[in-house]
Amino acid sequence: MAQKPGIPKGTRDFGAVEMARRNYIFDTIRSVYALYGFRQIETPAMENLSTLMGKYGEEGDKLLFKILNSGDFKGAVSTALYEEKTSAQLASSFSEKGLRYDLTVPFARYVVQHREELQMPFKRYQIQPVWRADRPQKGRYREFYQCDADIVGSDSLLNEVELMQIVDEVFSRFGIRVCIKINNRKILSGIAEIIGAADKIVDITVAIDKLDKIGLDKVNEELRAVGLSEEAVQQLQPIINLNGTNAEKLATMRTALAASETGIKGCDEVEYVLRALNCLNSDGTWKETTDNAAMRNPFELDLTLARGLNYYTGCIFEVKALDVQIGSITGGGRYDNLTGIFGLPGLSGVGISFGADRIYDVLNQLELYPDEAITGTRLLFINFGEQEAAHCLKLATAMRRAGISTEVYPDAVKMKKQMNYANAQQVPFVALIGENEIAAQKLAIKNMTTGEQLSLSLEEAIEYIGK
Amino acid sequence: MAQKPGIPKGTRDFGAVEMARRNYIFDTIRSVYALYGFRQIETPAMENLSTLMGKYGEEGDKLLFKILNSGDFKGAVSTALYEEKTSAQLASSFSEKGLRYDLTVPFARYVVQHREELQMPFKRYQIQPVWRADRPQKGRYREFYQCDADIVGSDSLLNEVELMQIVDEVFSRFGIRVCIKINNRKILSGIAEIIGAADKIVDITVAIDKLDKIGLDKVNEELRAVGLSEEAVQQLQPIINLNGTNAEKLATMRTALAASETGIKGCDEVEYVLRALNCLNSDGTWKETTDNAAMRNPFELDLTLARGLNYYTGCIFEVKALDVQIGSITGGGRYDNLTGIFGLPGLSGVGISFGADRIYDVLNQLELYPDEAITGTRLLFINFGEQEAAHCLKLATAMRRAGISTEVYPDAVKMKKQMNYANAQQVPFVALIGENEIAAQKLAIKNMTTGEQLSLSLEEAIEYIGK
Repeated sequence: MAQKPGIPKGTRDFGAVEMARRNYIFDTIRSVYALYGFRQIETPAMENLSTLMGKYGEEGDKLLFKILNSGDFKGAVSTALYEEKTSAQLASSFSEKGLRYDLTVPFARYVVQHREELQMPFKRYQIQPVWRADRPQKGRYREFYQCDADIVGSDSLLNEVELMQIVDEVFSRFGIRVCIKINNRKILSGIAEIIGAADKIVDITVAIDKLDKIGLDKVNEELRAVGLSEEAVQQLQPIINLNGTNAEKLATMRTALAASETGIKGCDEVEYVLRALNCLNSDGTWKETTDNAAMRNPFELDLTLARGLNYYTGCIFEVKALDVQIGSITGGGRYDNLTGIFGLPGLSGVGISFGADRIYDVLNQLELYPDEAITGTRLLFINFGEQEAAHCLKLATAMRRAGISTEVYPDAVKMKKQMNYANAQQVPFVALIGENEIAAQKLAIKNMTTGEQLSLSLEEAIEYIGK
Repeated sequence: MAQKPGIPKGTRDFGAVEMARRNYIFDTIRSVYALYGFRQIETPAMENLSTLMGKYGEEGDKLLFKILNSGDFKGAVSTALYEEKTSAQLASSFSEKGLRYDLTVPFARYVVQHREELQMPFKRYQIQPVWRADRPQKGRYREFYQCDADIVGSDSLLNEVELMQIVDEVFSRFGIRVCIKINNRKILSGIAEIIGAADKIVDITVAIDKLDKIGLDKVNEELRAVGLSEEAVQQLQPIINLNGTNAEKLATMRTALAASETGIKGCDEVEYVLRALNCLNSDGTWKETTDNAAMRNPFELDLTLARGLNYYTGCIFEVKALDVQIGSITGGGRYDNLTGIFGLPGLSGVGISFGADRIYDVLNQLELYPDEAITGTRLLFINFGEQEAAHCLKLATAMRRAGISTEVYPDAVKMKKQMNYANAQQVPFVALIGENEIAAQKLAIKNMTTGEQLSLSLEEAIEYIGK
């Protein structure tokens, strides 16, 4: 026997059980997006490299999968040039298309390309695979799905509010308890402005994030180590020690950021979103959530939330699962100039992205899949021979017309083998149709869970199996 | 303004309306596959080139999209070698992965790779895009979806019967009237055997196919022109003139092929499938369909059906739309050794593939899309300002809990602009919530189709809009 064939490293096959679970995840996200008026689009797997290059930083350019030009690609590069050029330079000559790296840049390209057809605000969702030539490791793949929703063409913070509702609704449907963390890039800019260290904001949030683990003294040490002045470190103390309810945190931040117009704007934006979400909970007065109502998961102002992507300019969000140790399972934020890179400036947008692979891991760990996520065939007809099978085909047709997923075992092999098949596929009901059943116009139906066997008319069997 | 960005030739963006229609097509096919006990799998977009190369003929190898190796691919080819090699040879050095060209070869690879986990017979379906570097032209794309179902590990002709039922069910659900054409590769082999011209079977079927257009004399001329002897042409006369019911055609073929064991086997197989389908129609006696019952579309033995792919060995099928001039919209057949190329011989399989793009064209031409295929948002709340919008958010939350797709217009812009948005998105109901409505706890709901406006309580509005 030859060596088993394989697939490229970092890619995956999804078998029937995995696919049923993945479809449950995608269908849940899809239906909530649709409930909020988002409409699905799809873009091609391949984009022109001119669309993709330079959008993800230098490292990102290296991680793009590039498609070799068809036909005589060698014609574009003489031997002398080949000698001279690096692989990266040659790639630009040999290749003009690449696989999409995320859904955001293709979406920006889509909006600019189709802007005359689009009605603003444009609310779209997109669920497609993306490809990155990352070093594969546990939980990191070279092909994975993203599930994005974005609204462009509206500055309103109501969009942020609705995206938070979507996050809350999706995780409620999954039964995953989460904490939704909110921050705002303008608050981070305000902090940097106040302490006069705009270039150190990432170091600062990283250091503050360690407070629970290493304590205040060590955090301050780290801040000094990255080059903050003693004065700046002192100015950061109320921010590092930030605690209390969201309202209390906001009040503290307003004081700390009083001198920064940008910082106060950030506080206003966060307060608006939190207030609107609270308003959904009760009668519109300001109070912390968790008591009841529209939002079923807590949300929390978290200053250490920075999110890596440079294009964010306003509110940013991240979702953490409460019962499983895993990174962020959803994230997003406001960007003010995403389409500028394609020549259409001034279009503001805000979006979220569900991490389907991590949600899959969480659902697996917590065993939260509902029955629908594993249901396959409900009824298998055992095949006792050509005559009986012909009869079974008719009965199976009637079963399917009644909406019952049904198989007829195709070969008249030993009963044991057929029953093994039913067990392996977790088929809950098996029909045994022999001469007697045909004569009596009955179906012998075996319940594979209880072992019980009943003799039923077709109508009775549909009723019994269908419920 | 910079030049508009574009996408690679032969690829497509799918906007919201197109996606709703495409989803209707995929969901219909998916649910019928599931009803027959097929289970979905997915394979990676990228396969190793060793898996793909040599499986689609020399022309197919050229049409594979190849992925440039990441990093220092130049290291594999010295300048001297570069000078010497052709583009095709260089491609093998610069690239070790390619995009899948169809779903069949990845499926064969999947079956061999996972054979220890799989329960035979294995019934899988797969709906994913494939990529071919074909010259783009009307109706031919470089990225398109295939929708395949296959059963492997069973020789039983019951599988063929069920696939025909699936075809019939899918097109019935679409409301597309079709003719299902059936032939058998063994019959074609038998014909070639009888006339001693195994290498000319394609020429023969092509010539016979022209009978309606050019008449018997010209067909015979063509047969002589491709090099058939006068004796062979005479032997072919009953086959060229084949007509009548399926039963009559089969009787004629049995006589013509009496000397070919293979040919008779082919007749037996077709007869079994036709008989079983007829049996579904009535009481198991042999008679032509169209009278009633389980199969709602006619099926027809058609000797001119050859299907290009060399791996077919038994029954082959093709579906033609009756009301639209378009090529085959679905096809498939039996293959006896698909997994042999990956070192697992002796595994028989049979499959079908729905042509989603052509089905899309047919549904468009015949305007057969049901309302579900275009439904988006059902209700839009007009935004009259911050206070009103906060109230609308609560009402929208209640609407969504009731399963009604709802939007709140995010910005308090001019009413006309908001109504234009509703019209452009074909939203059937609009809610106008001003001070008075808030005070009276009512919703003013405008029916955008009739123009009628009603003042309703929340419960009444849910009832009114939900139906």
